[in-house]
Amino acid sequence: MTVERILPTDEAHDLLELTTELADRELAPKVVEHEQRGEFPREVLRTLGRAGLLGLPYPEEYGGAAQPYEVYLQVLEILAGRWLTVAEAVSVHTLSCFPVAAFGTDEQRSLLPDMIGGELLGAYCLSEPQGGSDAAALTTKAVRDGDEYVVTGTKAWITHAHTADFYNIFCRTSGPGPKGISCLLADRATPGIEPQTAERTMGLRSSPVAQLVFDDARVPADRLIGGEGKGFTIAMAALDSGRLGIAACAVGLAQAALDYAVNYARERQQFGRAIIEFQGLGFTLADLATQISAARALTLAAARLRDAGRPYSIEAAKAKLFATDVAMRVTTDAVQVLGGAGYVADHPVERYFREAKVLQIVEGTNQIQRMVISRALAKG
Amino acid sequence: MTVERILPTDEAHDLLELTTELADRELAPKVVEHEQRGEFPREVLRTLGRAGLLGLPYPEEYGGAAQPYEVYLQVLEILAGRWLTVAEAVSVHTLSCFPVAAFGTDEQRSLLPDMIGGELLGAYCLSEPQGGSDAAALTTKAVRDGDEYVVTGTKAWITHAHTADFYNIFCRTSGPGPKGISCLLADRATPGIEPQTAERTMGLRSSPVAQLVFDDARVPADRLIGGEGKGFTIAMAALDSGRLGIAACAVGLAQAALDYAVNYARERQQFGRAIIEFQGLGFTLADLATQISAARALTLAAARLRDAGRPYSIEAAKAKLFATDVAMRVTTDAVQVLGGAGYVADHPVERYFREAKVLQIVEGTNQIQRMVISRALAKG
Amino acid sequence: MTVERILPTDEAHDLLELTTELADRELAPKVVEHEQRGEFPREVLRTLGRAGLLGLPYPEEYGGAAQPYEVYLQVLEILAGRWLTVAEAVSVHTLSCFPVAAFGTDEQRSLLPDMIGGELLGAYCLSEPQGGSDAAALTTKAVRDGDEYVVTGTKAWITHAHTADFYNIFCRTSGPGPKGISCLLADRATPGIEPQTAERTMGLRSSPVAQLVFDDARVPADRLIGGEGKGFTIAMAALDSGRLGIAACAVGLAQAALDYAVNYARERQQFGRAIIEFQGLGFTLADLATQISAARALTLAAARLRDAGRPYSIEAAKAKLFATDVAMRVTTDAVQVLGGAGYVADHPVERYFREAKVLQIVEGTNQIQRMVISRALAKG
Amino acid sequence: MTVERILPTDEAHDLLELTTELADRELAPKVVEHEQRGEFPREVLRTLGRAGLLGLPYPEEYGGAAQPYEVYLQVLEILAGRWLTVAEAVSVHTLSCFPVAAFGTDEQRSLLPDMIGGELLGAYCLSEPQGGSDAAALTTKAVRDGDEYVVTGTKAWITHAHTADFYNIFCRTSGPGPKGISCLLADRATPGIEPQTAERTMGLRSSPVAQLVFDDARVPADRLIGGEGKGFTIAMAALDSGRLGIAACAVGLAQAALDYAVNYARERQQFGRAIIEFQGLGFTLADLATQISAARALTLAAARLRDAGRPYSIEAAKAKLFATDVAMRVTTDAVQVLGGAGYVADHPVERYFREAKVLQIVEGTNQIQRMVISRALAKG
Repeated sequence: MTVERILPTDEAHDLLELTTELADRELAPKVVEHEQRGEFPREVLRTLGRAGLLGLPYPEEYGGAAQPYEVYLQVLEILAGRWLTVAEAVSVHTLSCFPVAAFGTDEQRSLLPDMIGGELLGAYCLSEPQGGSDAAALTTKAVRDGDEYVVTGTKAWITHAHTADFYNIFCRTSGPGPKGISCLLADRATPGIEPQTAERTMGLRSSPVAQLVFDDARVPADRLIGGEGKGFTIAMAALDSGRLGIAACAVGLAQAALDYAVNYARERQQFGRAIIEFQGLGFTLADLATQISAARALTLAAARLRDAGRPYSIEAAKAKLFATDVAMRVTTDAVQVLGGAGYVADHPVERYFREAKVLQIVEGTNQIQRMVISRALAKG
Repeated sequence: MTVERILPTDEAHDLLELTTELADRELAPKVVEHEQRGEFPREVLRTLGRAGLLGLPYPEEYGGAAQPYEVYLQVLEILAGRWLTVAEAVSVHTLSCFPVAAFGTDEQRSLLPDMIGGELLGAYCLSEPQGGSDAAALTTKAVRDGDEYVVTGTKAWITHAHTADFYNIFCRTSGPGPKGISCLLADRATPGIEPQTAERTMGLRSSPVAQLVFDDARVPADRLIGGEGKGFTIAMAALDSGRLGIAACAVGLAQAALDYAVNYARERQQFGRAIIEFQGLGFTLADLATQISAARALTLAAARLRDAGRPYSIEAAKAKLFATDVAMRVTTDAVQVLGGAGYVADHPVERYFREAKVLQIVEGTNQIQRMVISRALAKG
Repeated sequence: MTVERILPTDEAHDLLELTTELADRELAPKVVEHEQRGEFPREVLRTLGRAGLLGLPYPEEYGGAAQPYEVYLQVLEILAGRWLTVAEAVSVHTLSCFPVAAFGTDEQRSLLPDMIGGELLGAYCLSEPQGGSDAAALTTKAVRDGDEYVVTGTKAWITHAHTADFYNIFCRTSGPGPKGISCLLADRATPGIEPQTAERTMGLRSSPVAQLVFDDARVPADRLIGGEGKGFTIAMAALDSGRLGIAACAVGLAQAALDYAVNYARERQQFGRAIIEFQGLGFTLADLATQISAARALTLAAARLRDAGRPYSIEAAKAKLFATDVAMRVTTDAVQVLGGAGYVADHPVERYFREAKVLQIVEGTNQIQRMVISRALAKG
Repeated sequence: MTVERILPTDEAHDLLELTTELADRELAPKVVEHEQRGEFPREVLRTLGRAGLLGLPYPEEYGGAAQPYEVYLQVLEILAGRWLTVAEAVSVHTLSCFPVAAFGTDEQRSLLPDMIGGELLGAYCLSEPQGGSDAAALTTKAVRDGDEYVVTGTKAWITHAHTADFYNIFCRTSGPGPKGISCLLADRATPGIEPQTAERTMGLRSSPVAQLVFDDARVPADRLIGGEGKGFTIAMAALDSGRLGIAACAVGLAQAALDYAVNYARERQQFGRAIIEFQGLGFTLADLATQISAARALTLAAARLRDAGRPYSIEAAKAKLFATDVAMRVTTDAVQVLGGAGYVADHPVERYFREAKVLQIVEGTNQIQRMVISRALAKG
């Protein structure tokens, strides 16, 4: 099904066409092999960077495209339908540029063109092995020593742990609680930053995640972003945007799964008819299509609030929660539509199913989203 | 919770404020008594007509407000949160104006200002006792006799059966199937049009529905709308718009139920705390809030497609299906939040619960919506 | 559909046949009128008592039938399918006999034959206006004064408030918390026990519930059951059994709704076929039938644990939670199967729908059941 | 949580203890490695056979244990909680013994002791690449040629394709439709039976499934089971039992997933508390526990009908549908409880999640179960 989209500009329309073309040409043919080998497609990211897709929401002065989030998210959606690893990489990378773009000094911002251009890939180092959902309790320490911060501790679940060129490190520079947290921007080459063995994840295998150990890693003090104690504010601001990114990925993944299942159901014959003509299956597909449309509409509505400078944090949490739950449901049912065929690697739906699960977990588990939303309701 | 809305114009903003004010002043104080007495609030409709709320999507030359559907639906949503009968009446009445507005002759259109102004209330006579979901099989007959059509048959589930000033009658003027159907515009005073005893409905009691018997009712031939055989086309075109109207009503009803439950849960204490602070309840409310946001976003996205002149039929079916299922779920859980108190007439949630059920049935049952959507998927 | 039942004895088989016969002859013809008039069918309860259906689980020495709970619950299930008020009355009455039967003195037990025989109808007075789910916090006070207790306070949501011949009153005889609670058995004629106006409930209208005000009501001290401070223990023990009773009612109500919908769907034609042959509807009915079978199996499995003297409290909570959620879902969808016809009082499904809702609330809301179950999981 | 089970005999109690002991000692330590290597645990099956677990429902004269299905299914449940491949192997193998045990000649039955003893492993060859759910349309042909049948065709999704010692082959011996189908029992060594490359399945990797090509495979005519044209009857009779087996596997898998998640949630701390104490999570776990109890009760209730010689086909379909949907839901949420940790191979929940999906597909997809149930409802 072609998705009917109302876009704000002709430029946005062209951008989506370009994205679709790149996705078909550069992503689709490579996904299977990379997933099998567990190999990150660094070159593909570079290609996207050159095509201008890595800094869509950022100002043109830094090499960005100054696109509204509403448009950026639809780019992510299209990419996610071809290869979730790449869409997630774009989302994480865009997030990694956020601290510098929004809170950086001019000198720090001089890195942005290379970041946005795809030459420098970013990683976002917030989670810790014990911390999980409780970001304010993080324990990675950074102690000022002359012109440097000395960082010790361990971060967990770091996307691009091995391939990033720079890291946003959220670490504790003073006492407990959110106010003791700062954000440092470290180069990959920093001695004492040690990516660990990649986790054996169920999906997204071409996007290895790993722990990152900081063993007296020395980061220059001028790489502190936004001042000491600003880290939690930065992390939270980035998080809302990151949630929208995951929501868009979920919509794209769900749409790809539905499209595949619908095509299969149109061609597969049973009892003398295409199985899509059996109402039992047809109604299921109708429900899935409805859920996806709702997820997309909710995600883009939250994005338009952000674009309008309105409060959007709660709506972003709703979008992340809803869209990723939809993706899990749609991919589970998409496998079911194919029956036994859906359970084997000859068709992509089993991959979609494995991928969908992680979206309910990252950028704040869906339990965390419910906590965010219910607190807002309680406060009124 | 205040709903964050991005509106297309300042005028739309004012219109929603006016609606809220009218809803609070004219609707809210009357609903309980009217529901108890089963009495339609004809005067309230007149008031809304004078305030310009009865012809929002129609051109200004006919007394309309030339508002996009996106705005009109948000008006409906606000009204539905106060009194579903009134919102449904506005939706049905607006639908009843559609055949004349879109397909009528100039002479027929001369009635529009009074319709839109609230002086003439409309009814939309499509369903039949045996017909149910199969509109193309309708059997009410209209036989040409000189300058008149003689109408015989029975219509069922007619909103405003007793209070309408004019009826859109869909009837068979020639052979079987959709092509034999025409649309007549009849005055209330027409001899032979006989509203029957009102149905004993579970909710919406202030909006009596009834069968309408046509016993050789004579309608002037110049009241034929759009030509013989055009009836089914008119009905289907109206239906898509009508589905958006019901979707908006469902969103408004669900929001009212959630707001009531949230307020109750903030005040009600159990085990020494406001019950909203118990995560079990808080998470439920978060899920409901998320579903409502998704339903609203989906409904307005479909409306924007209509406003842009794009195909919107499938998205309207999705919106109707999704939003009314959400309303049923939200109102069921809203009663639950109040516990025993939710089960008695002292609080409005038991009314919302009874009202929600009908929304899953009208303007095409949700099974019919699934049929519409699954066929579109099968066709590709 | 005939339900395939494996019963432990031939006697149980006969008992279920008798119940079905009584239900068809004494209950089914009266339900509509009593519901409309809001009139409790006191005579029907007497008839059931004479037939031996009011003390099924109690020993034969007290006039009971010494039936296992597994059998008693299937009697309730059959009654609930005809008239929920009566099934609930049997459940509440059976519960009201429990304190005396299990903890009473010989003298107190001398009342049991009349209770079980249906001459004396019981009410169970535990809930309070502010208390809700927090039974241990109840505030109705009983102060010893010579040979009497003087009771003051207000109970809420009391089934049989106006028609009961005796009341189990849970009241505070000493300090706060569960250990300060005692249980008194009061006669209806006791001065100072004042039933209030009946609540305006959405369903179960033939079973008026009301607040009961105790205004210096004097209850003889020999009517204390089980000793001072034993009240909470009694209440909790009764509660587990009561939950099984509600679960069985829910199964019966759901089965009645499904049966009605299936019969309707076999006869109703649309698009030239019986609508049950449309897979969209057929699959929905299949899911409902499956849920009901699961609810019945779960309820009877919990009952067999009770009958075997094994711990069954958690399984009773699961049965109450699951079966009543199923009843809500089934009745909501049963209305949907009938479409518009389901929304009017000509068919019983709208009544079932209104009735189902209360089952999710009584004997501990379903939130309370989840609390009970999750605590057991946390303890391991 | 210990599951409270009411067992019919002390023997059954001992059997379940033995099973638990074997499962802990022989299965649990091997599952991870076998899954990783994709290697079937042939020795484990032999061990189970020697312990008497491979022919539980069959008569003692053939080496079986003459256990009711109610008991056999609980053995499967326990095995499935440790290693689904083994439980499924037992289920498939037991199914493979069914045609001979129920319809075989005395000579054919002479093989049973070795089958049941675990020396001979069976495969059940019904599905075909194009056939899917439409078993009656199978095309594998068997042509009589003297004392032999010559078999040509392709079977698909055959469990034990490479490791079985004997095959039940359902093939067409005469015209189209169910009546043209027969069942042959072939030895593994038969020339012309060629297992193909194993499918790349998402889970159950230690149980390779594959296509089986019959290329003029010659099967002695005395290996025809039950006479020509009896094949479909045999297949359908076996199917009902097979569905119960899968339902039991689903219950065991779901219970294992829940137990793991509950233990994790008791130990994992967030925001200063064990996460199981957060009601949001606790209520989710309570719902999962409830669903599992219902699935188990439903499955065992269907088994008791079978054991009592009552019709159980529809209840078996309900059990398969319900229990496998529950397993999918529970495993999805169990991963969620662990968050990121749930997504990696360090914990078994990601394996459970991948395994659960196949249970919704095998022995008749859940769509087929709904078809079976809805037809029974339509017939009344």
